[in-house]
Amino acid sequence: MDIINSIPDFKMTVYPEFVKKAEELKPALSSVLVRPAGLVRITERPQKQDGGVPDRIPFREADFAAEPAESIDALSRKTFGKGDSVCLDFGGHQVGYVSFRVEAVGSPQDAPAYLQIKLGEIPYEMGRDFAGYHGNISRSWLQEEFLHIDVLPAVIRLPRRYAFRYLEFRVLDTSPKYRVIFRDIQCESVTSADSGRVPPLKTADPELILIDRVSRKTMESCMQLVFEDGPKRDRRLWLGDLRLQALTNYYTFRNYDLVRRCLYLFAGLTQNEGRAGACLFLDPKPQVDDTALFDFSLMFVSCLYDYYEATGDRETLRELFPTARRQLELSMRELDEDGVVRDKETWWCFLDWGEGLNKQAGAQAVLIYALKQARQMALWLEDGKIADLYSRQADFVTEGALSRLWDAKAGFFISGEKRQRSWASQVWFVLAGVFDREKNRQLLTRLIQEDLPVKMATPYMYHYYVEALMENGLTDLAVETIRSYWGGMAREGADTFYEVYDPENRFASPYGDRLINSFCHAWSGTPAYFIRKYLT
Amino acid sequence: MDIINSIPDFKMTVYPEFVKKAEELKPALSSVLVRPAGLVRITERPQKQDGGVPDRIPFREADFAAEPAESIDALSRKTFGKGDSVCLDFGGHQVGYVSFRVEAVGSPQDAPAYLQIKLGEIPYEMGRDFAGYHGNISRSWLQEEFLHIDVLPAVIRLPRRYAFRYLEFRVLDTSPKYRVIFRDIQCESVTSADSGRVPPLKTADPELILIDRVSRKTMESCMQLVFEDGPKRDRRLWLGDLRLQALTNYYTFRNYDLVRRCLYLFAGLTQNEGRAGACLFLDPKPQVDDTALFDFSLMFVSCLYDYYEATGDRETLRELFPTARRQLELSMRELDEDGVVRDKETWWCFLDWGEGLNKQAGAQAVLIYALKQARQMALWLEDGKIADLYSRQADFVTEGALSRLWDAKAGFFISGEKRQRSWASQVWFVLAGVFDREKNRQLLTRLIQEDLPVKMATPYMYHYYVEALMENGLTDLAVETIRSYWGGMAREGADTFYEVYDPENRFASPYGDRLINSFCHAWSGTPAYFIRKYLT
Repeated sequence: MDIINSIPDFKMTVYPEFVKKAEELKPALSSVLVRPAGLVRITERPQKQDGGVPDRIPFREADFAAEPAESIDALSRKTFGKGDSVCLDFGGHQVGYVSFRVEAVGSPQDAPAYLQIKLGEIPYEMGRDFAGYHGNISRSWLQEEFLHIDVLPAVIRLPRRYAFRYLEFRVLDTSPKYRVIFRDIQCESVTSADSGRVPPLKTADPELILIDRVSRKTMESCMQLVFEDGPKRDRRLWLGDLRLQALTNYYTFRNYDLVRRCLYLFAGLTQNEGRAGACLFLDPKPQVDDTALFDFSLMFVSCLYDYYEATGDRETLRELFPTARRQLELSMRELDEDGVVRDKETWWCFLDWGEGLNKQAGAQAVLIYALKQARQMALWLEDGKIADLYSRQADFVTEGALSRLWDAKAGFFISGEKRQRSWASQVWFVLAGVFDREKNRQLLTRLIQEDLPVKMATPYMYHYYVEALMENGLTDLAVETIRSYWGGMAREGADTFYEVYDPENRFASPYGDRLINSFCHAWSGTPAYFIRKYLT
Repeated sequence: MDIINSIPDFKMTVYPEFVKKAEELKPALSSVLVRPAGLVRITERPQKQDGGVPDRIPFREADFAAEPAESIDALSRKTFGKGDSVCLDFGGHQVGYVSFRVEAVGSPQDAPAYLQIKLGEIPYEMGRDFAGYHGNISRSWLQEEFLHIDVLPAVIRLPRRYAFRYLEFRVLDTSPKYRVIFRDIQCESVTSADSGRVPPLKTADPELILIDRVSRKTMESCMQLVFEDGPKRDRRLWLGDLRLQALTNYYTFRNYDLVRRCLYLFAGLTQNEGRAGACLFLDPKPQVDDTALFDFSLMFVSCLYDYYEATGDRETLRELFPTARRQLELSMRELDEDGVVRDKETWWCFLDWGEGLNKQAGAQAVLIYALKQARQMALWLEDGKIADLYSRQADFVTEGALSRLWDAKAGFFISGEKRQRSWASQVWFVLAGVFDREKNRQLLTRLIQEDLPVKMATPYMYHYYVEALMENGLTDLAVETIRSYWGGMAREGADTFYEVYDPENRFASPYGDRLINSFCHAWSGTPAYFIRKYLT
């Protein structure tokens, strides 16, 4: 995600001991050399193929497919002159460093070679001309380079890291006297995930096997020096995304130290008043961003809770619990006298993209959810007094919710002045456990039946929806969602799950142009967690 | 220049001892750090300013000027976001390596910075959008880079060498959360010319002083590891260009070893049958091009002749005289039974750009010119037999010319089947000395009076025209040409003399687009030679 929401008078507070611990936990990346698997032809994909609803597509746009064209061996027999291009398929999603050799054939090279190199995670990026990008976030994320090579032959190692499956070479110019050939193309693909640590999957269901595989690949591509949200964009550690990655990691790659490192980074680099930032950067030096999000700060609590549950690492729990507590203190300040989170005009809380989603109720529910986890952590640390405090706070906030945000007549939680009824609000109140299991099931069933109009938009929110179904025994509905939503991406050939997926509009983008969407996004990679925790 | 004229079955013959000698003579480049002098605004230049003849301009085109805008100190106070740009003026022509520092200001850098960097020798290049280039040679010579910078601050040292006075930074994107500033911009300018060796100029004429200065700067920028034709394009050693550079060098920078090195390179790397190539390359390894030009091969003779005259270096003369002789042998083969060079359809001889110029007569004259120089070299080497041979050959070719190419009635030399009368043919026959001084003066005067329609096109040809005037005592006419032609460039603010200059059409280009012209071209840098040899 990419948002503009800066804290006034932003100031970072550094806790050097925590940062030091995080640095000590910096993972070694393993790398593997991957060569392209074949040549592909990028072709326009007829709209009818995609099952989309044309009138929901905001402008006439074409989608593209990659059709196998020739074997990779054919490349060595091809020479390229001005205007020629070739698209290579690396056979799967790669995150890494590309190198290749360019040679001249013909007369001596009498002018530089001028190349355009374009990389994309999906065929759509290869079919679109990046010059036509019309999104509202930085075009600098589009993976494209222009390269003059003065002397051939040359071995080129592109210095930047890319996330891609497809790579196109386009010769913008050579000269009439020579052509070029491309050789030894490879990607040094990197990850901090160790596939050898993934437990075998105990299911024979081919669809679940496929979805699990795509999940794991998504995770693997995002596991770098931290858990990145997406290796194409934004390539950084977001707290809300981390929570889902960590959960999935416990059931797959089990890289506990990477989670621990990320927790120490957020605890060691805080915003004003000790607030955990929404995201942070590693370069040029570790620093927290100036973006604050109510729910993301609270995800520090959830993330620590999950971590202890997965590892039993008492030392880390003890050391980081104060940071978790600070998030709750700061959040409690946002309550009015009835114990209800004050709504705001600004974008102060994430929950989901989704146009017009009011965040008040969701924020309230996330707070209850986190208070209950904090109570449990206090119990683990055998601090009854603190546990009692959180019990009382959870009750207070729950009462506030039930008295002001629960519309008993309609049977839904409402949010904001306009009493908005959204999927997000219901899902989060189910997760917050303000009702018992039976009432939760009724609420979820009613939600589906009445199909509230303010829908879920991101795989991030879909995760919590499935979690709510699973935790309340609505396993069939949960599996159905996994099969239709994540399965929908897998069926259209996704190697990794997307940042944005709307089964009814393949061109959906919160940024005004699908081109800039990330097509390998960790918050979308949680089906492996569901399948492994609840279904096998 | 940039031509397509490949020898069939091209094969390079290497004489390792000559190449070794050339490598031993490889000059050390001196470098100096140059910082931009100020900020400029590139503005459209009204057509009326340029004194051109509008109907000779092939399409409606604008020219551009660089107006001083702000001092360089102003740059440190400027921040740049998406779409912003700044144009820097380095105060004069530079050949070298650019480095700069980019910093982010605002929130932490949440997206790569995407920069376009454009470099130009003259304001016209800065005003034109390179995307609109419509020339017929490689666009790869246009000096423009696109750069993604993932982490700021960053010190960027562009790896390529550029020839430029103006440098534009254009920010294609940052993000709404940060802007960039540019600092520590500098060029490490390189040359193998040593200004300390230039003798003082003995004239008080301000115009000649200016023209001499621009000449020397042109030479300095082109003097690199060899004498390059132009440091923007083609950045390589052409034999015809070398001859003029060497001549000028003897009167200015006096880097005799650099000439010697270039002679050994041409002698050490020959084409089929020992032909001296039209040009050669240093990288990836020293190699001769597969382009052959009748007159350029013969320029090896002239170049060796000049070198000995300037240095008295008998050893080099002795060692390279066989290579010179080989060029004459190969050229003599091109004669018909009357001793006249056979005309050809292909582009086999350079002489000049100039549309429709027939090369037969010029080639004939160059051959006579070279035979006479070879005779003199034989005498220097005290080889009377060889000297006699060249005397007889020169007489034979002269007779052929006078019987078949001299139109006594019209008083002009004719060329080709269509009996073309061109400036180039007359000039070269004057230089070849087939007539005495008086008849030469008459021919030159008649040429100017009748203003033959097949005109001269390049400064290269203008050089030989001025040389012909000077050598025959028409000094005033020669000076007038220098003042009007080279002075014309200097008056419009040229830092260095151009590859192409047509006082009547500033958009002239042999490549279909002025953008690709070289604006620092050594074959245009010879006025310093004329001024110093003949005028002071």
